[in-house]
Amino acid sequence: MSTALNKQIQRIEPPFWFSGMHNPELQILFYGTNISQCQITIENSNAITNVKRTENPNFIFVTINTQKINTTEIDFVFKRKDKSGFIQKYELRKRTKNSATRKSFDSSDSIYLLMPDRFANGNKNNQNDTKTTEKYNRELPGGRHGGDIEGIIQNLDYIQSLGITTIWCTPLCEDNEAEYSYHGYAQSDVYKIDPRFGTNEDYVRLAKEIHNRNMKLVMDYVTNHWGLAHWMLKDSPAKNWIHQFENYTETNHKRSTISDINASKIDRNICLSGWFVPSMPDLNITNPLVFNYLCQNAIWWIEYANLDGFRVDTYNYSEPEYISKWTKAISDEYPNFNLVGEITMRNQGLLSYWQKDSPIAKIQNFNSHLSSVMDFALSDALQSVFNEDDDSWDQGITRIYDILSKDFLFPNVNNLLIFGENHDTRRLNHIYNNDIRKYKMAMCMLATLRGIPQLYYGSEIGMAGDQNLGDADIRKDFPGGWENDENNAFLPETRSECQKAYFDFTSKLFHWRKTNAAVHFGKTTHYIPENNVYVYFRYNTNQTVMVLINNNPENQEIMTKRFEENIKNHITGKEILTDLFFDLSQAIPIEGKSALILELE
Amino acid sequence: MSTALNKQIQRIEPPFWFSGMHNPELQILFYGTNISQCQITIENSNAITNVKRTENPNFIFVTINTQKINTTEIDFVFKRKDKSGFIQKYELRKRTKNSATRKSFDSSDSIYLLMPDRFANGNKNNQNDTKTTEKYNRELPGGRHGGDIEGIIQNLDYIQSLGITTIWCTPLCEDNEAEYSYHGYAQSDVYKIDPRFGTNEDYVRLAKEIHNRNMKLVMDYVTNHWGLAHWMLKDSPAKNWIHQFENYTETNHKRSTISDINASKIDRNICLSGWFVPSMPDLNITNPLVFNYLCQNAIWWIEYANLDGFRVDTYNYSEPEYISKWTKAISDEYPNFNLVGEITMRNQGLLSYWQKDSPIAKIQNFNSHLSSVMDFALSDALQSVFNEDDDSWDQGITRIYDILSKDFLFPNVNNLLIFGENHDTRRLNHIYNNDIRKYKMAMCMLATLRGIPQLYYGSEIGMAGDQNLGDADIRKDFPGGWENDENNAFLPETRSECQKAYFDFTSKLFHWRKTNAAVHFGKTTHYIPENNVYVYFRYNTNQTVMVLINNNPENQEIMTKRFEENIKNHITGKEILTDLFFDLSQAIPIEGKSALILELE
Repeated sequence: MSTALNKQIQRIEPPFWFSGMHNPELQILFYGTNISQCQITIENSNAITNVKRTENPNFIFVTINTQKINTTEIDFVFKRKDKSGFIQKYELRKRTKNSATRKSFDSSDSIYLLMPDRFANGNKNNQNDTKTTEKYNRELPGGRHGGDIEGIIQNLDYIQSLGITTIWCTPLCEDNEAEYSYHGYAQSDVYKIDPRFGTNEDYVRLAKEIHNRNMKLVMDYVTNHWGLAHWMLKDSPAKNWIHQFENYTETNHKRSTISDINASKIDRNICLSGWFVPSMPDLNITNPLVFNYLCQNAIWWIEYANLDGFRVDTYNYSEPEYISKWTKAISDEYPNFNLVGEITMRNQGLLSYWQKDSPIAKIQNFNSHLSSVMDFALSDALQSVFNEDDDSWDQGITRIYDILSKDFLFPNVNNLLIFGENHDTRRLNHIYNNDIRKYKMAMCMLATLRGIPQLYYGSEIGMAGDQNLGDADIRKDFPGGWENDENNAFLPETRSECQKAYFDFTSKLFHWRKTNAAVHFGKTTHYIPENNVYVYFRYNTNQTVMVLINNNPENQEIMTKRFEENIKNHITGKEILTDLFFDLSQAIPIEGKSALILELE
Repeated sequence: MSTALNKQIQRIEPPFWFSGMHNPELQILFYGTNISQCQITIENSNAITNVKRTENPNFIFVTINTQKINTTEIDFVFKRKDKSGFIQKYELRKRTKNSATRKSFDSSDSIYLLMPDRFANGNKNNQNDTKTTEKYNRELPGGRHGGDIEGIIQNLDYIQSLGITTIWCTPLCEDNEAEYSYHGYAQSDVYKIDPRFGTNEDYVRLAKEIHNRNMKLVMDYVTNHWGLAHWMLKDSPAKNWIHQFENYTETNHKRSTISDINASKIDRNICLSGWFVPSMPDLNITNPLVFNYLCQNAIWWIEYANLDGFRVDTYNYSEPEYISKWTKAISDEYPNFNLVGEITMRNQGLLSYWQKDSPIAKIQNFNSHLSSVMDFALSDALQSVFNEDDDSWDQGITRIYDILSKDFLFPNVNNLLIFGENHDTRRLNHIYNNDIRKYKMAMCMLATLRGIPQLYYGSEIGMAGDQNLGDADIRKDFPGGWENDENNAFLPETRSECQKAYFDFTSKLFHWRKTNAAVHFGKTTHYIPENNVYVYFRYNTNQTVMVLINNNPENQEIMTKRFEENIKNHITGKEILTDLFFDLSQAIPIEGKSALILELE
């Protein structure tokens, strides 16, 4: 019997694993022509706890109990009926020390969201990868522009100089769609970094370089679907690996059907099992093999690349019972690991439903185990309020007051991801027509409201883009990321005056944010907006921050008496952007369309 | 000692009481010049459990334990320091049998809301009452028009012929404001029917006449405020009987401050203690004397007039802890008594907060004990959707689907009061420009959606009115309620063709509703609207009702396959308004802007 014979195995997933995990069970997928006809043994026959075959003879799923393995390499012996066979080695790596108890990102962090293809082309050699279908074409708005991991690594100093602590890259795994593949959400191999972005080793290096800067890396994980080009959808282990309908059926996007006691079964089913788009087959996470595959893949990346968190795409498009089990499986391995789910809902009751230990979900005995959700209620408001000069009942800055007034619905408001924009929304600088005053107001709120602020690449140098022209317009190349770019906004010396104004403000604000525990974990008290001016306080026992947002185009004088219960004995407030001091016993003057952030002294 | 001396007592409240109540304690208010100087005794001295004096010598509050009184009359002996004195008799009436367990209104009922001053002038003698300030003036839109209890009694047959089971009259107690008093919300004597409406005995007679028709009477109760002309605000028992501020302070109406964990104390306080309008001093229900007074007054009316329910005005403008105690006190006396609170909130999470046993309120360990709340989310939608021909993401009939999708937030959706309009909102027939098709769609939904439908007087004969012209325009006189009215819509023979069309439709619909238990207490299944057509089912084990609302101006053919899970083995559907039969195996044709209500067979 020769190990040479193992060329009959074309894929092994996970490609290796780790000893000492909380869950000792590991289900290894072996893929090769008619592999399921083999009998499989290992030296310690006890350690194989399950062998699963499906209707596709090219797959076999072998479950082992890793606690029963003392070696770092396992020899899987494959034998056919004709007694021919081969040995396949499998590696069990040692975990990094304290891997399980790793810290994650939280509301003391701020996150920078970037799209790798559009950020910086650090390695010109990988942009012409021959094995993937879509070729480099920077002229095409929705094409591959050549940005890569090397480009991110080369510009980590830039991101750090912005005062940011955490980076969320949109997916980096292989997306081998023939076109429009740059966003990476139609993955074709979830154990491999897309060669146009780099290698798995590059990704590990990115994490290391980030950690060297005391920063954190968040992976964009996709549980709901893969791309049509995924190798396992071309030769599928089982018909029910994905959700299939008689005719192509798209999700109705009505996630409210999940908790709706009046919902029809058919609507709920189409919501959860319908496809996101024709190129993204919908994974059937209720199939235990799919479920295990997704759990292990997620854990593999955390362990392998030493990750600090997940952003989970289209979180509640998957069957709730199973996506919550998936989430819990990760939390069981990494109790402090933060996962932020994309819950595109605007109603806070329904948003809260998806956060771990939600009192709303408890009504239905549901618990998502998802530690963090995206605050789409707030982002919607941030996308309009600064254009609303009027403070009538439900307009203007009152929208944001009204959102904060429902915080009690959430089990943990500090763990909401707060943002004004991302790669799927309109860009703030477009909405606000590059009025930097409005950008500043939005950023001041993100930096001081409860939750984890997330910025979107490029806005910090004034980048805009109109979503009506297509998503590519909100996902433009970062200037300076390509060798011959006329403008390089990464470097202070080549930034335009306008870019400088945006950047310097943002950098000062987020550097300050790092220093102030009251805005990280403090309480909030807010006051009903008057005259389109919103005043709120963030405070703990040691620090008090007073934030004034004047959404009125006119200058205002803000009388302070009303805020006594928060001002207490403080006498002055130091404005953190201008270093000016304000006498709290006097009216505070504030310009039209501006914000003040005062540290009370 | 002579009983003649008791003319020194100007007021006793409650004027009498009932033996055998759940709560044996009764706090009687005696009012008279320097009455507080008196010592008070009764024969069974044990029965007086408390005597309270306030800073105003003209008040004394005597608490007795009615269980310790065996007589139907109590002699209160008042003695001054100079030994002079007098006896005041007090009556303890016997309760009606089964008073405590009285049934109330529920979702098998439908409610007709009317404003007595604007409904019908049945007694021309009381319109020129001499003791009240504002005089009859039908020419003045906001004046006293002379409608009265007698007018309601005379037209009960009309209301009954509409298929209605329950009548809610806006307040009937004395409102002695100098002007704009017809609405009755600024009460000046809460133990007395306004003489321009009739007498207390007339009100009791109204209840009797209603009960004789197997119908029900709901009183509009106001806990939050009285009118400036209230006798107890002219000579007040205590400074803190009402909420007072240095300067006149109006409520900010931000009831969200009540549950908002971020709210400032000052905002919450102004919300709860600020005045509704300058003519309505805000009662301080946290004062135990005020609290008892309001409890007893409410219970007195239920017991005295034999009421079937309360509608409670501006419910959550009162301190939550105390208004919930007030509500519970009533429920303790009458466990089946339904109280519907005016909770003018559009967010279902916040609306649910105020319904008894709310899972949302439980987050804050709060329970309002309020059995029913008004579904302002739905009414807002009903006030616009039929003008929205487009079914884009959050427009058109989808608004209503989205509202129903949050029903799980409520502890009891059957006990929501559902309505399209009331005396404080725009009128449907104005919004819909008297397009009867839209009126019919709204009514069909009210008659078939979960909850207790409430209609607003006059719309059933096509009455309109523009709130932009002032509230008087949505509170016009019912045609035929006044002797020389040119048009009398109360009688079939004098209704115009147009009035007939409205009335006959409404009457048929609500008569039908009385017969169908599935729409009273059945479950709901609804389907995501397609093409601006909303289909939902109400069903129990015996009956299934299918409702189709075509909010599209075009005729539609509705394929039935999608609704299999509700249609089951049913073969035909009988449309309840036209008596036409529909074959459920075929597409169902439905006209543009119309509704079909099918009883499945």
